[in-house]
Order: sequence, then C-alpha cells, then structure tokens
Amino acid sequence: MRDAVALLSGGLDSYTAAALVQADGFRLFALTVHYGQRHAQELEAARAVAKALGVARHIELDVNLAAFGGSSLTSSAPVPKDRPLDRGDIPSTYVPARNTVLLALALAWAETLSAEAIVIGVNALDYSGYPDCRPEFIAAFEDLATLATATGVGGARVRIHAPLQTLTKADIIRKGQALGLDYGLTHSCYDPGTGGRPCGRCDSCVLRAAGFAQAGIPDPVASR
Amino acid sequence: MRDAVALLSGGLDSYTAAALVQADGFRLFALTVHYGQRHAQELEAARAVAKALGVARHIELDVNLAAFGGSSLTSSAPVPKDRPLDRGDIPSTYVPARNTVLLALALAWAETLSAEAIVIGVNALDYSGYPDCRPEFIAAFEDLATLATATGVGGARVRIHAPLQTLTKADIIRKGQALGLDYGLTHSCYDPGTGGRPCGRCDSCVLRAAGFAQAGIPDPVASR
Repeated sequence: MRDAVALLSGGLDSYTAAALVQADGFRLFALTVHYGQRHAQELEAARAVAKALGVARHIELDVNLAAFGGSSLTSSAPVPKDRPLDRGDIPSTYVPARNTVLLALALAWAETLSAEAIVIGVNALDYSGYPDCRPEFIAAFEDLATLATATGVGGARVRIHAPLQTLTKADIIRKGQALGLDYGLTHSCYDPGTGGRPCGRCDSCVLRAAGFAQAGIPDPVASR
Repeated sequence: MRDAVALLSGGLDSYTAAALVQADGFRLFALTVHYGQRHAQELEAARAVAKALGVARHIELDVNLAAFGGSSLTSSAPVPKDRPLDRGDIPSTYVPARNTVLLALALAWAETLSAEAIVIGVNALDYSGYPDCRPEFIAAFEDLATLATATGVGGARVRIHAPLQTLTKADIIRKGQALGLDYGLTHSCYDPGTGGRPCGRCDSCVLRAAGFAQAGIPDPVASR
C-alpha cells in the first residue's frame, strides 16, 4: 500500500486534493494543525472531511503560531472584507511561514510512517497572494525533504503532491463533484459569525462563491 | 538593531551558537520548542540560558511531535547507552524532521519580527548521525526561506547562522569559555535520572564529557 500524509484544513481545497490522491491509489493519513486560528469551525470541518474520506488515521496537532503574531487570522486584527482580489499584494490573512510549518510537520509524520507522499491543497488562486503557495516553493520543499530525513539519506524521496496547483477554484469544484465529494462538510470563511455562518465578504468566501458560480454548481454551505 | 531568532534547546550547543551571534551584534529573540521530550530539564535549562543571555523575548512553544512517534526521545523506547559513536548509522534518538520543524517555526517568528537571521546550534559531531544537521540541509533551508516568505518575495533574505557547524565539541566549549558562558546552566542528557542527574552513558552525555575532557575544562554540571 502506498501511503500519503494529507494536510486537511477543513476547507474544500485540501479535501479535494486528498481525494484526488486517494483516487490515485494512496492510503491517507490526515493531519490537521490548529495553528491559532480564531475559530473552531475549520477543525470541526476537518474532522468531518477526514471521516468522509475514511482516512487510516487523523492527527490533530496544536501549534500556536498566534504566539508570533503577524496575521489577521491568528490575532484580533480585522480580517479584510470586500477586498479586490487582483491587487497582487499579500493580504493580512497571510500567516508567516504557515505552509513551511505545515509541510515540516507532515514530513515528520511521513518519515515515521515511511509514507511516499505529502498532499497539500495549494492552488493557482492562493498563489496570487501567498508566497508559500507558489510552485517553486513546493518544489524547493520537496528537495529539502530529501536532505532533511533519514529516509532521504537512504535514497527514498518524499513527493509533495499539490494536485490543485494549476487549477482554478471552479476546476477544483468540478473535479470534487466528479469524485462525489460533499462540500457541505467544508468550511472556508476566515471570519464566521454566530453558529459558524460564513461572512460572505472575506477573500476566502468571495473566492469560494465565485468558484461555485463559475462551475455552475450550487454551494451546499451557502444554501443552508 | 539587527535581530535574530535563536533556537535554544537548553543544551550547550544552542547556548554557544546564540552567544556567538549576539557577540556579532545581533539582538536575540529566543525560541524553545517543547516537542514531546520525555523530560523537563531541557526546558528549565533553556529558560536559564535565555535569562543569562538577556534575550529581548523568549517564546516557549508546544509542538507534540510525540504524536507521530518514531524516536526514542519522544516515546517510551529505551535511549541507547554506551553506543560507539563512530558507527555511521542514525541512532534511535533521531527525531524525524525535527530541525525542519524547528527552523520552520523560527522562520515564522523571524518573518513577523523582520529579523535578519535564525540561529541554530547544529555542529560537526551531530552531523555524523543526524541528516538534518548536515551543511547541505541548512543551506537548502535558507534557500527555501526566501521562497517561503513575504519578506523573501520583497527581496529580503533570512540567513541561517549555524556557527558551530564545522567545530568539534571541544572547540565549541573553548569558544563558550572565551565568551564567559556558564555551562552549569545547560542540560545535555537524553535520559536523566532522579533530580535531573545526567546518565553519563547516552550519546549526548558521552559527547559532552569527551568535549570537556578534550578542551581541558571541567564540566560544571558533571562536577555538581
């Protein structure tokens, strides 16, 4: 059996990425990191997604990146709303070095499991703003992983699977629908209201809504 | 002021590395990660070392790598004793991807602080067994850091300072003595007994004892 450690955030991207790698024949081990996000809905969604995927094991890990500050996702700073998405700058929701930390933790588990792969749901849209979603970053981490590990010294290479990298949000949603994924389990909003209701105005909500609209598929979360 | 995030374990290597970078004119921000080690002496030592260095701030972070298993340092597996150190294999005290995780966390804080440097106390002796102490690993992480961060995108480059990399343990101890460091504050043993007394037989104790002996300096901890 080929094993893969899949980073699951509770959002639709990581769910779809994991499902695509599973469809390629990998057994999944899911890793969810609570890095100090202000709300718990993501974690509940990650649990539901892990269950729906039937992963071999799901580890939830606390890593309090909020101790360092520097992001509106992990502090009391306001999450930007109604922000034009084509501005090309890096939004305040960027969490410094988050994907480096997430991939490092996934690598630690992958080495213990002798897993062949790590799955991360970075995509072409995230890429527009966050430096650690760029293809060159993912490629550099894969090179680092070989140098970083005893298995790498032994000649094994952990591959970083980022199957959404060049897809639009609409493409991702279409692929997920083809796989029969239940996006009603997922949570995308950076700043949910009471009861976990999506705000509809943060970058993540806006991207999600545009993706579903472009794919011509209703969002099961929005329609609830 | 030039700022550096220094990884402090409570051992003598990280203390010396931090002190050397401080002597080069950097203001230090110390980061200690409790990654699931079986004993608390390291953390107490890290606090004492941070205080002795007069760091601007000390963050202690819990990251439970024990959840992944795979090391005798984070599990109930026995720590090897009286092991020949020239065998060239990777000992069970290796913690999968530990330095990748530590550097990733230091990078997260460094980016928030706009710090220029990260300090890690890897050295030539560790290098003999642990893959993530090799110079090529450290160099690859420095390259990754530029790709991983918003500051890197902006053209700033975080440097990884590993000033002990090519030194023997005796060299390190001599340098520390020249700087007036109090190695009585440090803790090296992988498997301390009651009251935190060093076992004297694990790799870390054996390397430390050989280093002090070779430097011709008495170990203030061993003589207590």
